[in-house]
Amino acid sequence: MHPEPDYTIDTFHRGAFQLVQPAGKGHRAGLDAMVLAGAVPNGFSGRLADLGAGAGAAGLAVAARCKDARVVLVEREAEMAACARQSLALAANAALAGRVEVLEADVELSGRDRERAGLADRTFDFIIMNPPFNAAADRATPDLLRRQAHVMENGLFERWLRTAAAIAQPEADVAIIARPASLGDILAALDGRFGSPRALPIHPRPEANAIRILVRARKGARGMLNLLPPLILHEQEGHAFTEQADAIINGRATLFTD
Amino acid sequence: MHPEPDYTIDTFHRGAFQLVQPAGKGHRAGLDAMVLAGAVPNGFSGRLADLGAGAGAAGLAVAARCKDARVVLVEREAEMAACARQSLALAANAALAGRVEVLEADVELSGRDRERAGLADRTFDFIIMNPPFNAAADRATPDLLRRQAHVMENGLFERWLRTAAAIAQPEADVAIIARPASLGDILAALDGRFGSPRALPIHPRPEANAIRILVRARKGARGMLNLLPPLILHEQEGHAFTEQADAIINGRATLFTD
Repeated sequence: MHPEPDYTIDTFHRGAFQLVQPAGKGHRAGLDAMVLAGAVPNGFSGRLADLGAGAGAAGLAVAARCKDARVVLVEREAEMAACARQSLALAANAALAGRVEVLEADVELSGRDRERAGLADRTFDFIIMNPPFNAAADRATPDLLRRQAHVMENGLFERWLRTAAAIAQPEADVAIIARPASLGDILAALDGRFGSPRALPIHPRPEANAIRILVRARKGARGMLNLLPPLILHEQEGHAFTEQADAIINGRATLFTD
Repeated sequence: MHPEPDYTIDTFHRGAFQLVQPAGKGHRAGLDAMVLAGAVPNGFSGRLADLGAGAGAAGLAVAARCKDARVVLVEREAEMAACARQSLALAANAALAGRVEVLEADVELSGRDRERAGLADRTFDFIIMNPPFNAAADRATPDLLRRQAHVMENGLFERWLRTAAAIAQPEADVAIIARPASLGDILAALDGRFGSPRALPIHPRPEANAIRILVRARKGARGMLNLLPPLILHEQEGHAFTEQADAIINGRATLFTD
């Protein structure tokens, strides 16, 4: 018998960086994190916060592609923050480790508590987030889903975007990946904080409903919502990624050119 | 010199019905109305209200495709309601005129005023709407647009969906066509009235942002937002409609199968 490993080391961006994460339990980083990282334009060179970073996949993906970006991985769970620190110690990540730090802090803190935890007001040029949702909800019966949906996420985007708006510099961008069901809550929570939102639906196949939505907006901007052409992950048949999805997932393209 | 005509008679659905409308001024019916009508499934056989019907293009398109549907065109402007009545008197519309009536009433009435105007509670099985927006806004400068956007539409969807919810039978559907910028307001106004919303973006070309969004939801349903694959009007090059757009616009297909 082989013992189950406690941790795995996975390679992303065709070898550009590696990620330590707990094996076989909880939420494992993958597609969502890579797509979220794809919201940051090429050549971004400021300070970026990855809120609720988990093991750090999205933030590391930005650091790997944007060679002058400085990244802070903000994670509340000690075990996940420890994974992120281990990732930074890997030889494979030497090229980016000097530009990435791990901050063990709760995104939902506010006021002085947030500042004391290391998240000072107006200190980030870009904020990315993949807020946790109860993954069980995706597998629940429609009835259960209906009853729990609002309870589960009640105020989640409001609290996370309140923090994002506080720590953002003027004209800083925020990018959020979430379920399409959360779009209304996200737009409401952006209102008055970040403007000119651009929403990009992510469909598993051309003829299937969206499974995720990527929203990007700018602090202080006042434009209205734009709906961008969708990202399609796979063709209608087969398991291969589409050319665009493959480029995004592997850090060779971005979803926003500006 | 030829005098400008006051009214035109346009043919839709490849001859299935004709529409009288004022020439050369105001909002002329076309694509939006045909796409909105495409939200009603084939074989729909109940009573449908077209709120803010204008000359009646969307409601007539439903009546032309759904041979057992009964349609009420609700329009506040006397001139537009008169156009709708003239349309019903045309020989070309004889097959559907007996199932269509024109109600000159303001959608924004409430309570007893609304009922007295002819819109009784719980009397419709489907409600479609293309709420007016200041078309000038689409041509305004971004700055002007930003300043006016919230003022122009402040509460519009709230008031229209309040009426829709009142006149809808239990489990009746509502369909709305609007600008993507209005999606947040629409979702907020649906909340607590119509559930299980399905949003379908409409893009002029595959690589262009959406210009319209079609939203359908059901009274009393409690499911979360789904984002459907988009409708693309034209291929990336050329002026011809895509196969799907052509079928929708000409009443040979629908955007929702149920």
